[in-house]
Amino acid sequence: MTPFLQLVLVLMIIITAAKAGGWLAVRLRQPAVLGELLIGVLLGPSLIDLLHWQILANPAEPHLLTEAVYELAELGVICLMFLAGLEIELDEMRHAGRVAILAGISGVIVPLVLGALAVLPFGYRGSPALFAGITLTATSVSISAQTLLELGVLRRREGIALLGAAVVDDVLVILLLSLFLALNSSAASLMSVLFVLLKMAFYLVVALAASFLLLPWLATWVNRQPISQGLATLVFVAALAFAWSAEVVGGLAAITGAFIAGMGLSRSRLRVEISRNMHTITYAFLVPIFFVSIGLKTDTHLLTGPTFLLAGVMVVVAIVSKIVGCGIGARLGGFTNPEALRVGLGMISRGEVGLIVAAVGVNEGIIEPNLFAVVTIIVLVTTLVTPLFLRQAFAHKELSHA
Amino acid sequence: MTPFLQLVLVLMIIITAAKAGGWLAVRLRQPAVLGELLIGVLLGPSLIDLLHWQILANPAEPHLLTEAVYELAELGVICLMFLAGLEIELDEMRHAGRVAILAGISGVIVPLVLGALAVLPFGYRGSPALFAGITLTATSVSISAQTLLELGVLRRREGIALLGAAVVDDVLVILLLSLFLALNSSAASLMSVLFVLLKMAFYLVVALAASFLLLPWLATWVNRQPISQGLATLVFVAALAFAWSAEVVGGLAAITGAFIAGMGLSRSRLRVEISRNMHTITYAFLVPIFFVSIGLKTDTHLLTGPTFLLAGVMVVVAIVSKIVGCGIGARLGGFTNPEALRVGLGMISRGEVGLIVAAVGVNEGIIEPNLFAVVTIIVLVTTLVTPLFLRQAFAHKELSHA
Repeated sequence: MTPFLQLVLVLMIIITAAKAGGWLAVRLRQPAVLGELLIGVLLGPSLIDLLHWQILANPAEPHLLTEAVYELAELGVICLMFLAGLEIELDEMRHAGRVAILAGISGVIVPLVLGALAVLPFGYRGSPALFAGITLTATSVSISAQTLLELGVLRRREGIALLGAAVVDDVLVILLLSLFLALNSSAASLMSVLFVLLKMAFYLVVALAASFLLLPWLATWVNRQPISQGLATLVFVAALAFAWSAEVVGGLAAITGAFIAGMGLSRSRLRVEISRNMHTITYAFLVPIFFVSIGLKTDTHLLTGPTFLLAGVMVVVAIVSKIVGCGIGARLGGFTNPEALRVGLGMISRGEVGLIVAAVGVNEGIIEPNLFAVVTIIVLVTTLVTPLFLRQAFAHKELSHA
Repeated sequence: MTPFLQLVLVLMIIITAAKAGGWLAVRLRQPAVLGELLIGVLLGPSLIDLLHWQILANPAEPHLLTEAVYELAELGVICLMFLAGLEIELDEMRHAGRVAILAGISGVIVPLVLGALAVLPFGYRGSPALFAGITLTATSVSISAQTLLELGVLRRREGIALLGAAVVDDVLVILLLSLFLALNSSAASLMSVLFVLLKMAFYLVVALAASFLLLPWLATWVNRQPISQGLATLVFVAALAFAWSAEVVGGLAAITGAFIAGMGLSRSRLRVEISRNMHTITYAFLVPIFFVSIGLKTDTHLLTGPTFLLAGVMVVVAIVSKIVGCGIGARLGGFTNPEALRVGLGMISRGEVGLIVAAVGVNEGIIEPNLFAVVTIIVLVTTLVTPLFLRQAFAHKELSHA
């Protein structure tokens, strides 16, 4: 079988399985995203066997198929965060500004401190302990956004605050990582931290301006031109362009860029059409691959003995510290206790950025490789529990309002 | 830049360039597909430079990025042929049966004979000459289908006949190739040809039954289930599944399978929705990549001196032999001269299958590697002239009817 036919087969299996998992979850009154994630964990080993076919077909380049699947998954995350942005209006975001900033800041500090403390009994001291704390700071909000979208509550106060806090979180974590590396290395200086800060500020100003002023106008113009699927193409390319430049220009996470592009286009008169078009590409093709790929990425082989204990402790710390940290921040911002709890629950899930931070730490020799395995477990567990927790937290609210 | 960010950048450039090329072509009253193909040829060298970044980023696996682009392009072809099938109704196809079969058969024989004769002055004799003829037999109808869709004439007599003839062509070319290899090799026997024939027949019967009886029912059922973008997902996966099984089970081209899936779903009550969903995925994402990738694939470095002359001769023979061959067949089937000419023009374009046949020939040592370069030139030229010719041929018809 050619590599392309292998890819087609794997995509067929992944997409069908994800939708079947989602369908089952909905039947069991759970968010579909939970089922799609779980099916990835369940299918994991057998799907990875399929992916290893590639080794037989093309021994020179064993990872073509795996890479293709992960790259499609990454495109899915970008589309997902674009759609989350599309749901949000600027006024709502501005309104949530204070609570988002407070929850974002507190939601970084508490996991950092608790994470650094938690690894002390495992022999980590000083810099490595601090770095282990940093690996717990980065929230990945895409799963929460999807869950709240499904529950129809993304645009409530808590949802908006959550999305805003996630952007603050992204900015802070990157700053924190840059600061740590600058202080830890002899070559890098505090000037480099300043440079990181400047790049971010530059990107955010330009991206927000382009997204809010240029994109809606461009959408209207393109929609009038004789281009097949012109609007859908523009929107898809815009999501890619903002995501790409967020990483390359701003040094931020790609999803932050996609989110900003979505927010800008939420002001377009063509919002309903844009949403319909992106929903098709996102949910019929790319996002099921993303959900399943999370399960695929979890390599449990590195987890033996003491690492297993460390993983258990870190998972608990990761969950509790985000709830407490973001909860306190949201409370200080004026939210009620139940509201603050919901923001905290929504910030639990970790993703890409946590893995990237851990990879940097391993590459720089700051932390041991087994901590990377621990972070993959944290990503998996926090990703799985977040939809469950959110479902509970918001079901309760619906009841009390009924 | 990570491989993923490179891919995102390349996709942004390719999709934007394709749409800009298409837009310009429409402004110049040409089919958009012509502009999208030409932009691929123009951008070719610089885009390939971009693709070679990968070598710097990941020396162990230099082709990840290139492969990812080509695989997305291939997915685009599948979606394109699915949409062509979706436009066609079974009754129309049945009606065109006789002319499709005649045009398909005659459109294979004439290029085979003329192609074999054309290489004689270049020192080819016997088997190699015959094989060179076979490389000219395989029509790739996706560009014609797209052009006729744009011109709004795909469902005219000529369009239907064209699509039917292309399926016949696909079946015949594969049979011809198998027959040749069986006769040429000492190991393989005529039994293996019979086996190829049986596989095809088995696939076609099962696929047609599944497509016409199962798919429309499945679409209706899935559409009622609580699955986000359930219908779009089903349709996308069905296109993949039929394409995959066409190659793996039937030994046919993937696009033949996708076409059959589309034909079956054209009977669904949800046809309009299916078409809208697939249009978004196809034209906003995958197909622009396909069009541009054709230009990228053309490696002109192998063309020097005598090969250049051979390429020139073969291109002319490729074009003339299809027009004459399919034209005669269509004429025998009862079409008027202008109608038969239009069918012939629509069958000119070559694609994947021609390249695959040539690659088999080179690998088996039957033909020289330079003939592969010749076939890539044939693919490029025939792909570029087909939309131009069709535009002229059908513009004339519109005038005469006005």
